[in-house]
Amino acid sequence: MLEFFSAFKELSRGETVALWTVLGTAIAGLFYAGFLMIQVLREDQGTAEMRKISSAIRTGSNAYLGQQFKAISFLVFIVFAILYFTAGEKYIGVGRACAFIMGSIFSAFVGWAGMNLAVRGNVRVAAAADRKSFGDALKIAYRTGTITGMLTDGLGLLGGTVIFMIYGMRAYEVLLGFGFGGTLLALFMRVGGGIFTKAADVGADLVGKIEKNIPEDDPRNAATIADNVGDNVGDCAGMAADIFESYEVTIVAAMILGWASFGHKGVIFPLLVRAIGVFSSIIGTYMVRTKESVRDAMKAINIGFISSAAISIVGFAIVGFFYLRFTGIQHPVWVSLGVEGLDMRPVWTTLVGILLAITLNRVTEHFTDTKNKPVQQVAEACQTGHATNILAGFAVGLESTVWAIIVISISIVISAMIYTGTNPTFVAYGVAMCGIGMLTLTGNNISMDVFGPVADNANGIGEMAHLGKDARQILSDLDAVGNTTKAITKGIAIGSAVVAAISLFNAFITDISHLIHQTYEAVAASLSISFPNVFVGLLIGGAIPFLFSALTIRAVGRAAFLIVYEVREQLKDAAVWAGTKLPDYARVVAICTTAAQKELIRPALLAILAPILVGFLLKKEALGGFLAGMILSGQLLAVFMSNAGGAWDNAKKMIEDGAYDGKGSEAHKASVTGDTVGDPLKDTAGPALNPLIKVMNMVALLAIPIVVKFENSSAAFWGSGIVTIALIGFVLRDPESKKTAIKQKAVETQVAHIK
Amino acid sequence: MLEFFSAFKELSRGETVALWTVLGTAIAGLFYAGFLMIQVLREDQGTAEMRKISSAIRTGSNAYLGQQFKAISFLVFIVFAILYFTAGEKYIGVGRACAFIMGSIFSAFVGWAGMNLAVRGNVRVAAAADRKSFGDALKIAYRTGTITGMLTDGLGLLGGTVIFMIYGMRAYEVLLGFGFGGTLLALFMRVGGGIFTKAADVGADLVGKIEKNIPEDDPRNAATIADNVGDNVGDCAGMAADIFESYEVTIVAAMILGWASFGHKGVIFPLLVRAIGVFSSIIGTYMVRTKESVRDAMKAINIGFISSAAISIVGFAIVGFFYLRFTGIQHPVWVSLGVEGLDMRPVWTTLVGILLAITLNRVTEHFTDTKNKPVQQVAEACQTGHATNILAGFAVGLESTVWAIIVISISIVISAMIYTGTNPTFVAYGVAMCGIGMLTLTGNNISMDVFGPVADNANGIGEMAHLGKDARQILSDLDAVGNTTKAITKGIAIGSAVVAAISLFNAFITDISHLIHQTYEAVAASLSISFPNVFVGLLIGGAIPFLFSALTIRAVGRAAFLIVYEVREQLKDAAVWAGTKLPDYARVVAICTTAAQKELIRPALLAILAPILVGFLLKKEALGGFLAGMILSGQLLAVFMSNAGGAWDNAKKMIEDGAYDGKGSEAHKASVTGDTVGDPLKDTAGPALNPLIKVMNMVALLAIPIVVKFENSSAAFWGSGIVTIALIGFVLRDPESKKTAIKQKAVETQVAHIK
Repeated sequence: MLEFFSAFKELSRGETVALWTVLGTAIAGLFYAGFLMIQVLREDQGTAEMRKISSAIRTGSNAYLGQQFKAISFLVFIVFAILYFTAGEKYIGVGRACAFIMGSIFSAFVGWAGMNLAVRGNVRVAAAADRKSFGDALKIAYRTGTITGMLTDGLGLLGGTVIFMIYGMRAYEVLLGFGFGGTLLALFMRVGGGIFTKAADVGADLVGKIEKNIPEDDPRNAATIADNVGDNVGDCAGMAADIFESYEVTIVAAMILGWASFGHKGVIFPLLVRAIGVFSSIIGTYMVRTKESVRDAMKAINIGFISSAAISIVGFAIVGFFYLRFTGIQHPVWVSLGVEGLDMRPVWTTLVGILLAITLNRVTEHFTDTKNKPVQQVAEACQTGHATNILAGFAVGLESTVWAIIVISISIVISAMIYTGTNPTFVAYGVAMCGIGMLTLTGNNISMDVFGPVADNANGIGEMAHLGKDARQILSDLDAVGNTTKAITKGIAIGSAVVAAISLFNAFITDISHLIHQTYEAVAASLSISFPNVFVGLLIGGAIPFLFSALTIRAVGRAAFLIVYEVREQLKDAAVWAGTKLPDYARVVAICTTAAQKELIRPALLAILAPILVGFLLKKEALGGFLAGMILSGQLLAVFMSNAGGAWDNAKKMIEDGAYDGKGSEAHKASVTGDTVGDPLKDTAGPALNPLIKVMNMVALLAIPIVVKFENSSAAFWGSGIVTIALIGFVLRDPESKKTAIKQKAVETQVAHIK
Repeated sequence: MLEFFSAFKELSRGETVALWTVLGTAIAGLFYAGFLMIQVLREDQGTAEMRKISSAIRTGSNAYLGQQFKAISFLVFIVFAILYFTAGEKYIGVGRACAFIMGSIFSAFVGWAGMNLAVRGNVRVAAAADRKSFGDALKIAYRTGTITGMLTDGLGLLGGTVIFMIYGMRAYEVLLGFGFGGTLLALFMRVGGGIFTKAADVGADLVGKIEKNIPEDDPRNAATIADNVGDNVGDCAGMAADIFESYEVTIVAAMILGWASFGHKGVIFPLLVRAIGVFSSIIGTYMVRTKESVRDAMKAINIGFISSAAISIVGFAIVGFFYLRFTGIQHPVWVSLGVEGLDMRPVWTTLVGILLAITLNRVTEHFTDTKNKPVQQVAEACQTGHATNILAGFAVGLESTVWAIIVISISIVISAMIYTGTNPTFVAYGVAMCGIGMLTLTGNNISMDVFGPVADNANGIGEMAHLGKDARQILSDLDAVGNTTKAITKGIAIGSAVVAAISLFNAFITDISHLIHQTYEAVAASLSISFPNVFVGLLIGGAIPFLFSALTIRAVGRAAFLIVYEVREQLKDAAVWAGTKLPDYARVVAICTTAAQKELIRPALLAILAPILVGFLLKKEALGGFLAGMILSGQLLAVFMSNAGGAWDNAKKMIEDGAYDGKGSEAHKASVTGDTVGDPLKDTAGPALNPLIKVMNMVALLAIPIVVKFENSSAAFWGSGIVTIALIGFVLRDPESKKTAIKQKAVETQVAHIK
């Protein structure tokens, strides 16, 4: 047994216990998720009509995800084989390939479970609003989210810990596979889900609200169910997989750099921090409740968040104090207090991370909440028309990037300053621990995020099932809060992607230095921005997120076009229009599913191949510049698109709530334009950049040994040149050039096949 | 005499002759400009009515520029003093401060002259269309532009040559002042002019086209003259100053790096290349003419461009062959041909630059011309409404950045590869020479650019003066071609800013290495993207263009609001509405002027102070990262905004020319929204990023000695910390928070003061 778990050979008895405790905590988190699940599923499901609607959403969601998994499984198998054969050593090859499968399955499972619970929670929330109280509805909606949150925490921690237990000091090479599995799945779920959700949403709105002037969620609109399905597959499955991935990737980076800096203590400490996070999330999320007299959902959620943060901070300090003792380190303050060898720096950096998470939340809230000036100004600009609204939101998005960058920069600077005077690996470990701290409260963040689609769906079900006025008010209030929490967690998701990417970037350098047998400093020096090859890499890397966003935005447009066509056709049926016959919801879901799968191919190919091709064509230094440029412009664009979209969305809400002559006014029309523009930006293109950033980093890390090996091979150079041209041709080939009729035909065939 | 001209001490007789020849060419260029000026001014000015309108535009333009120069003169004086006192050595201090003044004056003069000729050329073009022919109208419009082009060429070359003659091997330190003068003025003219032009344009459209449904350029609209003035101050004065600046900055960078690489040959060769460019531009631009049977303005302009390019290439090869002989260099091919010591590499890199210019033109044309798919798709998207049009243009803009980056990257890689195996300074010189080559055809480019506003204004005058149908058709055709040429030169302007910035960046490193007495390699190594401080600098630098764009877009919005208010007020006068009384055009011009000056302060402060503060707060390495991040995101955003704006603009044109039910249809309304959104992006925010990139680089170069000197001073750290907070507070303070009434009042007072 202990032979297999090679880590334990080098650990003290206390550390062995600590490691098992971490594993136990991970499992406890999963059990807690199970406990909550039983609780939620026991709740009342409301009327037969409500159940019917909920069941339609559930069927649609599962049909989508099933199709998605089927489509990906082939690719996962190929990557599995590649990882196995390129690792160089069988021991690592097996581990890495298996870890890749584990990461993929965990990521997929988190997404699948989150979605399946959301589609079951929604109807129960509606029922609670109808038959019980505000507080009960809130509790069910939030706890539905917490289940996914705890699954993320539990599985992320479990995977990392088990791999470390088995592979010990070589865990790093295997962890890469684990991280890549999660990342790749997240990319597919994010992009595919994002295209699905917005195609359905925009398509439903264009025909329903704009052409036919019927309300949102009107049962006659064939895209209604698809729209609700979209919320689940995009916001829920996609987002959960995305945050799971950041959670994983930060732990991978911290463990890699921790080992290089402090040996096993550097690896076990981040695991301990994560374990504390699991406990504090359990307590904090359980505290989310509100009295019937108060009915303030946002406050309740915030109290839960702050409580978890406080518990974590205390926990970190205690664990750090007892565990972080090193021989040879003699800080005068600690020595004077009689605690020689104490090194609390990893604790400080995690605290910086927690503060970063809290501050980023506030920044996002400032730019996207109706209570603040930015959104109010966007709403005001609607008075002078569509164009001024677009420009105002555009400016808000641009400005918000600066604040996010400032907050992240300050955190990185402080984390690095804590390790001033040490070597670069220590500094990198500081930044990685900041990322660990930032994602400590993942349980809470995912609860908040999944709460969004659950509340949104519950509101939709309430509308379709014609619930009473009080219940409708409760659901509408929860939906509004859900919009805010959803926007807020986007800030964290993007920020964590950047911090994770920076940590991975350091792992990239460590890797090269091993491969070419040079010091970290020598490799770092070769990545100077003053070298033309690095600078060119920087430029190309910077352009990738722009291209990726263009692709995803266009994909939504094309898919939405198909939906518009379909909904129009169905509404031509007089019985459907009269409301006496239900439209064919499943058909629209099937069209969305097919379109999303098809549209996924180009962006995915770009994400996976670009770093490899840059490495082969322009050498490893350019690849380093490429990663840096991609992180920079990815962060800027993602924040820009998310916040501009959030501001337009809430400006529309303000007007619908009565500002500037309310619904039906010219200002309202302008605000709808803004919202429609913002939708694919904030829910498809923007969030898809998080996994993009991480996938490219992961691919670079995995490919770098091969890139270095073939650095001087002209066959590799010309081969990758040809592939590059082919890729550019394929990715940028204009699919709209073919006749729409032909496309329509092909979709019909595929749809028939799925059904 | 020769004592004063220290360069000659080290030059051979042949080189001395060459240098005087260059000076003579510069003067010849200026004489040619004078010759064209006389030619254009001799032309017929048309009817009294036309003269009256033209005179109103001229008065307005000069009022604006006068006010602008008055406002800047104080700042110029302060910078003059700072440069004088911070140079460290009187000899350099005097030179640098005087060169700064010379650069400022040249830049201002080019802008002023270009604008003044444009406002005189416009009426003559209209008259030629009315009384002569298409060919004559084209010739006058294009030659009006050529005058500015030749002034740019002549003055840019004159300044650089004279400074080199006087300061010899220390010219570099003085040239910095020359470059900075041109850059700073360009920033002001670009940003101020950009705000003016779009505030007037958007304001005129919002009231005229959208509220009152009267045509563009309707004489009853009080903002009509301001709109035409805006074309001149923004597109003409701003653009001319901007390209002048790139022209200057590339020569500065090439001379700095040339000296470091090849001594005086490295300095004189770029000057010779530029001189060849002046000659080939004279010949090429003179060839622009079209037969009455053909009437193809675009073809004529392109023939001129290609001819100039061909002449340049031949010229470079000949001069290079006879001049570029070095002892010690023995390339086997040349040796076998009996030309030992020949080093043609500088020629190859300039050729790469010319190809880059031609290719960038094609890329811009692809994304913004109505003949190509991108614009056609944007027009198509107008059918489904405002939002889909915005999204389509957004995607076009995003995608176009990738192509521009690819083209620029390939050029840099090839330029660097030409110097493979040499040291980094040589490589940097290669990139700088690519920039020199790229701007060889500046004469042609500015001709094409200024042609835009001249044709636009002529068309406006034709409309207001009710010319005949044939004349109107000629003017409308020329206007359309002008839109395309204007868009095309934007691509060059941005691309050249990036190449110039990369060259300056290398000068930055050379500078640090002198200051801290270390090798170039050691300094370069400290700028590795793997260091957190460099990466943080990269992040912050990347955010600056986003913030800057947010500021300028909002500035246009605020200024346009004032115009809307004013035009509405004036239209309330029944006599104005009936067309029996002329509105008060001058008042609108005065409001635009004041608003542009006021709105200029924040972006300008940001541009000048940000690099200094980053240097003091985060040290010189972070400043290096800052510059790189700023170049990257500046390039991406600038191309994105210019091309998205261009695509929306031309999509509207397509619909106005009859596509999708033409004017008045729903699709047309959607296209107008796109155009209005695109206007401030493509004409204010986007182009303002060029001078921003260069100003920040220049400031960094000038400030680096002081940054290095006070690197460990905590007073400097905390002092700049306080200034940073104050700057952030001031720049981001929300001017809209004050009551509009108060603001309106203040503007009234200022306007009264100007008048």
